[in-house]
Amino acid sequence: MASEGPASGEDSLIARYFKPLATDPGAFGLGDDAAILKALGDDIVVTTDAIVEGVHFLSGDPPDTVARKALGVNLSDLAAKGAAPAGCVLTLALRTADEAWLSAFAQALSEDTAKFGCPLLGGDTVSTPGPLMISITAFGRVPLGKMVRRNGAKPGDLVVVTGSIGDAALGLDVLKQGAATRAADTAAKATLIGRYRVPQPRTALASAVRDYAHAAMDVSDGLAGDLAKLCSASGVSATIHAARIPLSPAAAALVASGTVGIEAIVAGGDDYEILCAIAPGRFDAFEQAARKVRVAVTVIGEIIAGSSPRFINGQGDEIILPRLSYSHF
Amino acid sequence: MASEGPASGEDSLIARYFKPLATDPGAFGLGDDAAILKALGDDIVVTTDAIVEGVHFLSGDPPDTVARKALGVNLSDLAAKGAAPAGCVLTLALRTADEAWLSAFAQALSEDTAKFGCPLLGGDTVSTPGPLMISITAFGRVPLGKMVRRNGAKPGDLVVVTGSIGDAALGLDVLKQGAATRAADTAAKATLIGRYRVPQPRTALASAVRDYAHAAMDVSDGLAGDLAKLCSASGVSATIHAARIPLSPAAAALVASGTVGIEAIVAGGDDYEILCAIAPGRFDAFEQAARKVRVAVTVIGEIIAGSSPRFINGQGDEIILPRLSYSHF
Repeated sequence: MASEGPASGEDSLIARYFKPLATDPGAFGLGDDAAILKALGDDIVVTTDAIVEGVHFLSGDPPDTVARKALGVNLSDLAAKGAAPAGCVLTLALRTADEAWLSAFAQALSEDTAKFGCPLLGGDTVSTPGPLMISITAFGRVPLGKMVRRNGAKPGDLVVVTGSIGDAALGLDVLKQGAATRAADTAAKATLIGRYRVPQPRTALASAVRDYAHAAMDVSDGLAGDLAKLCSASGVSATIHAARIPLSPAAAALVASGTVGIEAIVAGGDDYEILCAIAPGRFDAFEQAARKVRVAVTVIGEIIAGSSPRFINGQGDEIILPRLSYSHF
Repeated sequence: MASEGPASGEDSLIARYFKPLATDPGAFGLGDDAAILKALGDDIVVTTDAIVEGVHFLSGDPPDTVARKALGVNLSDLAAKGAAPAGCVLTLALRTADEAWLSAFAQALSEDTAKFGCPLLGGDTVSTPGPLMISITAFGRVPLGKMVRRNGAKPGDLVVVTGSIGDAALGLDVLKQGAATRAADTAAKATLIGRYRVPQPRTALASAVRDYAHAAMDVSDGLAGDLAKLCSASGVSATIHAARIPLSPAAAALVASGTVGIEAIVAGGDDYEILCAIAPGRFDAFEQAARKVRVAVTVIGEIIAGSSPRFINGQGDEIILPRLSYSHF
């Protein structure tokens, strides 16, 4: 991504919309072929996530929410690894250079890169005959060797999640005129749709995750599937008490009315909350750190020896999950 | 990109095809949500380039050439900045998980990541209803403060390019049944098509570029347009002697026969050669370093004061260029 030189359509588009986001000196104002990421004695954490129109967002979704989601899904990974954001690069595949769309997209991306301290370092803008696609690679910093892995959970650890689970999947269901549409009231629908369109990355919690979690990952494909991955990486199992899974009022009402089952909540995906394993003796301190940054954290179960985690209901019976998470293929 | 945990289609695809490429310890075998890039006291150079089916490669292009191009266009940027490859992340947007296609794609990517010392650190595999798209973010290392910028060219510097110019654009013309098809013989056509499909990143020349060039960039959108960008960034102009632009025998034959003009050669794009500005007194040493790594380098003109570089013919007359380079919008 380079904005200098005689303006082609592409270059002038970059200069107008994206140069203002390149606030880091290493971005060279998007005026070169590459950027510099200073290491500053830390480990650089690298993550990449793409969102595709019709798959991760809908054609009608407002451009500002598309921008926030494209960045947010990456910031969520950084937060789960205990990393502070350092910058990002953007690949934007567009059918046409629609000025109104681009202007709103860039404005929202500008706001969120500033808000989360993740300046744009570079990128590539390409034309596509297909759906819009936004791929972001984000960089974070952790002290040397301190990235929080998936593989450190130990039997006895508490299984903890941030925020609430299931809202985004229900929001998508509302947008697709599914069962949630018929049940939820207007305000609840708006909340759920907002949760689908704009993840709330738990960036503020990153340092507490680093200080307290044995293992962590973000919940992006579904709580059940992502927990299974964390357990598999750690060589452990877990027991999850379904009734303890934190639900928003909107989601709780849909579950209470029987409109959706807990199976849909835990396999829904797009939560972008943090799932982590914390030693019982450390949970109070973690919760206190979380409270300081106003992120809700909830214990939903325990890590145990074994493989394949189980979800149990109030009667202690295992809940059979027809699927664990979303898979692209 | 994560290959552990209960295998969804996506996870098993990653485990089978891409885990073998994750040879760097910081990739954690693609078994986590993020990778670690060690800084080792260097500056990390970051570049990102995407290729889209039907735009940067053709639907019928073999999967191995698609993989090599996706990586090569990024390695080319690193080389032009004087950076040694350190690793990359991959976003792959696929319509279906076609095993034969994926297997050939991953095999070629494995070969080239190994050949160029650029191991896969992570990625994201997503489904798309649209064209295939491969976005790679590549990382390189340079000693602190030593990345070669676009903006250092000085009046009096020689303008130098590597390899030969125009082949890839002619190769695309052959694939599209254009004028080059009618003129070129079978061997020439194969050479030109190969140059379109598989860039030859000048990675071997990176350290010489760093040691000798005042300014450099890779020629990706067209020599004329990219030179204009380098001149603009440096606040200089240039005079280019069209007859000195290095052509392959295949391209030279097409120009000699009048099938294509030099205007098409210099505006064609997809060359992935290095364009750089070198002080006259340093050129011999640069050429010697280039010879050691078997990269041809050719002086095609001089940097002068002013703006807007000019291309002149053997009679000293300016060549009017209807366009300078490829632009997506």
